[in-house]
Amino acid sequence: MSGTKPGAAEPGPGDAAETEGTGRPRVVIVGAGFGGLACARKLNRQPVDVLLLDRRNYHLFTPLLYQVATSLLNPSDIAYPLRAVFRRSPNVRFHQAEVASVDWVGRRVITAGGQSFPYDYLVLATGSSDNYFGNEPVARAAIGFKGLERAQRLRNHVLACLERAAAVREPAERTRLLTFVVVGGGPTGVEYAGALCELLHLVAGKDYPTLSRSELRVVLLEGRDRLLGMFAAPLGIYAERALRRRGVEVRTGAMVASADERTVRLSDGSAIPTATIVWSAGVAPDDPLGDTVPRSRSRRVEVGPDLRIRGRPDAFAIGDVASVAWGGVELPMLSPPAMQAGRYVARAILRSVRGASPPPPFRYIDKGTMATIGRNAAVASFAGLRLTGFVAWLAWIFVHIYYLIGFRNRLAALMSWAWNYLRWDRPIRIIVEAEPDPVVEALGAGPPRPHR
Amino acid sequence: MSGTKPGAAEPGPGDAAETEGTGRPRVVIVGAGFGGLACARKLNRQPVDVLLLDRRNYHLFTPLLYQVATSLLNPSDIAYPLRAVFRRSPNVRFHQAEVASVDWVGRRVITAGGQSFPYDYLVLATGSSDNYFGNEPVARAAIGFKGLERAQRLRNHVLACLERAAAVREPAERTRLLTFVVVGGGPTGVEYAGALCELLHLVAGKDYPTLSRSELRVVLLEGRDRLLGMFAAPLGIYAERALRRRGVEVRTGAMVASADERTVRLSDGSAIPTATIVWSAGVAPDDPLGDTVPRSRSRRVEVGPDLRIRGRPDAFAIGDVASVAWGGVELPMLSPPAMQAGRYVARAILRSVRGASPPPPFRYIDKGTMATIGRNAAVASFAGLRLTGFVAWLAWIFVHIYYLIGFRNRLAALMSWAWNYLRWDRPIRIIVEAEPDPVVEALGAGPPRPHR
Repeated sequence: MSGTKPGAAEPGPGDAAETEGTGRPRVVIVGAGFGGLACARKLNRQPVDVLLLDRRNYHLFTPLLYQVATSLLNPSDIAYPLRAVFRRSPNVRFHQAEVASVDWVGRRVITAGGQSFPYDYLVLATGSSDNYFGNEPVARAAIGFKGLERAQRLRNHVLACLERAAAVREPAERTRLLTFVVVGGGPTGVEYAGALCELLHLVAGKDYPTLSRSELRVVLLEGRDRLLGMFAAPLGIYAERALRRRGVEVRTGAMVASADERTVRLSDGSAIPTATIVWSAGVAPDDPLGDTVPRSRSRRVEVGPDLRIRGRPDAFAIGDVASVAWGGVELPMLSPPAMQAGRYVARAILRSVRGASPPPPFRYIDKGTMATIGRNAAVASFAGLRLTGFVAWLAWIFVHIYYLIGFRNRLAALMSWAWNYLRWDRPIRIIVEAEPDPVVEALGAGPPRPHR
Repeated sequence: MSGTKPGAAEPGPGDAAETEGTGRPRVVIVGAGFGGLACARKLNRQPVDVLLLDRRNYHLFTPLLYQVATSLLNPSDIAYPLRAVFRRSPNVRFHQAEVASVDWVGRRVITAGGQSFPYDYLVLATGSSDNYFGNEPVARAAIGFKGLERAQRLRNHVLACLERAAAVREPAERTRLLTFVVVGGGPTGVEYAGALCELLHLVAGKDYPTLSRSELRVVLLEGRDRLLGMFAAPLGIYAERALRRRGVEVRTGAMVASADERTVRLSDGSAIPTATIVWSAGVAPDDPLGDTVPRSRSRRVEVGPDLRIRGRPDAFAIGDVASVAWGGVELPMLSPPAMQAGRYVARAILRSVRGASPPPPFRYIDKGTMATIGRNAAVASFAGLRLTGFVAWLAWIFVHIYYLIGFRNRLAALMSWAWNYLRWDRPIRIIVEAEPDPVVEALGAGPPRPHR
C-alpha cells in the first residue's frame, strides 16, 4: 500500500456532516494530544484533507496539569480549544467525538454517537490512562492524574480535606484528613508532591489558623530504591533531598498492596490512614481497538519501523498507544517521542500521497528530560549535561512556556508564575465542580468513566 | 434584647472545632454573598468573634457570571477564596459548611454535617436561587443562572450544542441545536443574550466553518411589554434596539407555558424547538429556616425596621432572603441593598455589644443600576441621569472592576477585557466538567441540587 496513491474514500450515506470532501486523500487523526496535534500541524496546508477527532474540544498541555491540581493555574491556561488552533487552516478540521471502533474493511472510524468518518490514512494517537495494574480497590480509592477533570477534582479534594479537618475534633480523623499520599516517584509524582507541599505550607496557619504545618503530612511512595528512575542516579538523589527539605516524607522500596477510602496498605504490612491517595505510578495505553490490532506485552499497539500498525498498512499508531522498539526497550510514554512520531507520520503520509518512496525508518532523537520539584528546584538532563537547582528550574520554566500553545496562554502562565513567585500565592483556591449536562455527556465529553 | 449586652454563648460538647472563643460576643453570619461579606468586613477588628459560614469556599462576584458562561472570564476571575479575604483578620473566621437549621432556643446553627456553632447574634444572608414558580417541567428542561457550577455548565452546554450541530445532517435537529432561548428580559437575561450573540458570531464560520451566522438564533423572551422593567422606559427601548442590532430576536409579552428538552411552548400556543433554555426570569429566597420564621408573600423573611427577624431579637436577615419594605414595595433582590443592609447590621450589632441605644431604622440609598448589552453598549441610570451606549459601557466596566475583590482579580479581569476588546476573542472555549468527589459532596459543596 505504501507508495501507491489510494483513491480518496467517498463519504457514505451514514457518514457525519463535515465529511464533504475535496477529492483529496483523507487523513483521520484520532486523539489531539502531543502526537496527534503535531501530526495535524505538519499536515496543515498540504494536499490532504485532515480530520482531527478527540473526546475533548481542547489540546491539553499535560506537563502543567499538576499546577492546576495545586491551585496555581487556571484550567484554561493549559487547555487550548482545538477549533481555534485550526481556524485559519484550509485543510485541517477538528471534530469533537469519541471513537468507538474502526471499520477496517470499509475504512471508516465509528464514533460512540454512531457517526462514521471515512479515511484513506488513519493515525491512532489516543494516548494513555491511569494504570492500576488490575488492583480494583486501589483504583476505586485513588485519584488519578489523567485529564483536566481529574486535576480539578484533585484541587477540590485537597481543599475540601483542609476544610473538613479544620472543623473536626477527633485527632485520628484530623490526622487522616491531613495526610496526603502520592504513589509513584516518577516526574509526575515528584512534581505534584513538591507543589502540594508548597500549597499546604502556604495555607497552614494563615488560611487555616487552627492547622499547623507540623500536622500536615505529604508521603511520596516509590516501589524502586530511588526516585526518578528514568534519570541518572545523582538527579534522583538530589530530588529526594530537595523534597525532604520541603517536608515531603519520601519512602522508597514501598509498594502499595491495597487501599480503601480510609487507609493505604503497603506490601510490608504497614498502613497509612489517609483520605487522599494520588496515583502517579503508571499509565496504560488507552484506545478503542481491542484485539483488532496486534499488541505488545504492555498492551501498546505493535507498529513496524515506519510506525504503520502491523497488518494495517493504511493505519499508523503514535505516542503512548504505540509500541516502538528503541534500543531494546519500548520508547517511554512521554511527549517528545509522540511529537516526533506525529511529524514523522505526517511526512510518511505526504510521501505516500505523492507516490514517493517510503521514508527511512523512524528514529527517535532524545532531547533530554526535566522535572521540577518546587520553587527554585528542578532536575534536567540533556546532551550529556545534568542540571539541578535554580538553573534547572529556570530551564524548566523556559522550555515549558516555549511549548505552551498560543500567545495568550504563554502570557497568562508566565504572569501567573511571576505573580506567584513574588507573592508566594496560590490564587485559585476555589472548590467548584461543573453541573453535569446531558448534551456534554452525549458528546462523550463528561468526566472520565470510573477507573479500571 | 437590643441594647443589652448578652453573655457570650459557651461552646457545647457537640460544637465543631474552630469555636473556641475569646469570651467576646459571637456573631455567626450565614452566607458570604454581597450582604454577608459586607457585614463580616465591617465587623473586622471589632470586639466580636465573627464566624462566616457558606456552602462554597469563595465569594462569587455574580454580576460577571454571564461572562464565565460565555467563555470570556475564568471562574477564578470572579470567585475569591473567603479564607484568603480574612487571613489577616484577628476576629473573623470563615468555615465552609451548609447550614441545615437553627436551634433558636440553644442559640446554635446546625450544619448539614451535624456540627453546631453557637451564636449571640445571627445574621441570615443566604441569598436566592432560581425560581420556576412551581413549573416542574420548565425547571427540569431549563438551565438556571445561579452559581459558578451552573455558569460553567452553560458554557459547556452551548459549546457542546455547536459541536453536535456541526456533526448533524438533519436540518430540524440542526436548527434545534442552534436555537438558544433566554427567558427573562431583566438585566441578567439582557446581558447574557447580548454576550451569547457575540460569542456565537465570533465562532460561526471560523471555529465552525460549516455553521453560518444566519443559522444561529438567540431568542429573548420577556413576559412584560418591554425589557429592563426596573429601568426607565427609554433605557428598555434602547436595550431592545441594541440587542436586535446584534441579532437577538426579542419577543416581549411572551410567557413560557411549558418546556421539555426539545421544545419551549409559549402561552400563546406557539412553540420554539430548542436544545437550550436559559432561565433568568426569577429568583426566590433560599434559606433553611422553613416556617420557624415569619415570611412575606414572596417567601422572604419578615424583618423589622432594624432588620431583626420578627420574633427573633438576636437574629437579622439581609439581602435577597429578607423582606424589607421600601416605598410601599419590597427592596429588589440586588447587591446594593444587600451590602447596605450588611453594613447596617454590623453597626447595629456593635451598638448592642457596647450597650448603646438601638440605631435608627435602616434606610436604603439607591445609587442607581446598570446593565451591559455588549461591546460598546450598556444602559445606566443614577442620580437622575440616564446613560446609554459607549459612555454607559465605560461606566459599567469601571464600576464592576472597582467592586471586584482583590487586586489580582481586578487585574486579571481588566486584562482579559482589554485583550478581548482588541482581539474580539473569547479565549475560554473549553468544555470541561470536574470529576465529582465524595469529600466535596460531604461538605455540601457539590453541584447544586435539582431545581425546584
